[in-house]
Amino acid sequence: MSAPDPKLLPNIRVVLARTSHPGNIGAAARAMKTMGLSELVLVGPAIYPNSQADAMASGATDVLAAARVCATLAEALADTRLALGVSARRRDIVAEWLTPPEAAARLLREAQAAPVALVFGNETSGLSNEELSLCQGLVTIAANPAYSSLNLAAAVQVLSYEIRQAWLARPDWPQPEMEAASGVEMENFYSHLETALAELEFLNPGSPGKLMLKLRRLFSRTRLAKEEVNILRGILTAAQTGRHRRQK
Amino acid sequence: MSAPDPKLLPNIRVVLARTSHPGNIGAAARAMKTMGLSELVLVGPAIYPNSQADAMASGATDVLAAARVCATLAEALADTRLALGVSARRRDIVAEWLTPPEAAARLLREAQAAPVALVFGNETSGLSNEELSLCQGLVTIAANPAYSSLNLAAAVQVLSYEIRQAWLARPDWPQPEMEAASGVEMENFYSHLETALAELEFLNPGSPGKLMLKLRRLFSRTRLAKEEVNILRGILTAAQTGRHRRQK
Repeated sequence: MSAPDPKLLPNIRVVLARTSHPGNIGAAARAMKTMGLSELVLVGPAIYPNSQADAMASGATDVLAAARVCATLAEALADTRLALGVSARRRDIVAEWLTPPEAAARLLREAQAAPVALVFGNETSGLSNEELSLCQGLVTIAANPAYSSLNLAAAVQVLSYEIRQAWLARPDWPQPEMEAASGVEMENFYSHLETALAELEFLNPGSPGKLMLKLRRLFSRTRLAKEEVNILRGILTAAQTGRHRRQK
Repeated sequence: MSAPDPKLLPNIRVVLARTSHPGNIGAAARAMKTMGLSELVLVGPAIYPNSQADAMASGATDVLAAARVCATLAEALADTRLALGVSARRRDIVAEWLTPPEAAARLLREAQAAPVALVFGNETSGLSNEELSLCQGLVTIAANPAYSSLNLAAAVQVLSYEIRQAWLARPDWPQPEMEAASGVEMENFYSHLETALAELEFLNPGSPGKLMLKLRRLFSRTRLAKEEVNILRGILTAAQTGRHRRQK
């Protein structure tokens, strides 16, 4: 049996969104490093850098020191081809729900081609609707229904552990199903879509939010290939041109 | 498919030996409760009770409040039929090494008949040789060889998670292989063995430690049935009687 592929783990990113407690950031860095993960991205952390983060990181201060801080989750995911959100199960979200082993397998498979991300929300409020709309699937850790509140770093530990076990178990993964559009390509598509819908007066430009969020969710869940994004943008351009032509 | 057996999780005990930081005790209680475990036993904690333990327990203060404090690990394991130690892999220990899923399956199987335990050592020094000698097997979490130091509560989270996943996956477990001797029965056997070996002048009564530790390890690893303990004690009694007879 050949060895697991050393290129995969560096392509798996842990993104912590709007973390309140700096100690949790450090503990998450430690949890990641024990399982061989090193790519940590912080989106709008409440308090960072901070001595408590350093203390909780213990021997993983290198992971912490290399962490990238981003203003938005879109920025953190710009170059990723797959982002999975970690969430307690909630009934009102239409999404693909994965178990940790399923998520680990999906991430490793896609990590062969491009960076992928696991996204963890705020300790108290979890992932916001906007953050969820940037994820192509959700991972839930089967917990005690009477008390399912894992500490943030404990959740990072469980997911990182499952990724490592899956990585150790398989020297080769099937190729990704398709060449998925990147985070940046998806954002450009959404901008184009929003502009086009505004021009078509389908969208109220003063409050485009709710409809755009629904559309983002739909396309995130679907996970678009690069080629599909090109086709959709072609349609948008044709619709815009048709409208301009009619306006003449 | 029938539901998982609700009697099993209450029979699985988490034992924290000589924990230095009270915060870790609280975080471990929280990790347990998220996975439906509730039986926490503390052996000689450095600082306990403590407000930091309460704070880190979050919504699991009930588990913490119900925790039993013991002076020795033998006391904590007195009524158990199986105790597995959690340890980073060390080359010099002859023992059965289990992966977390293997350990979870073993614990659930044995928990049908009697209490079982997962034993976690001190944060820095791990399990002592004496503590290891009370465990019938060791569990190791496959970690990054360059940094394998999981936080104590993070290790509790991973093992508790694996126990819950195994528990959810199987409504029925095969019966335990044998009626294993309990912790108390094993301790009585060791006392008997030590007395007998001293009488036979095989053991230096001034420093019986090293040999007894080796014998404990051997019998712990083997895992004795009740009946086997009775046979061995019969042999010891015969040897003692023979000696007394010769002395007359």
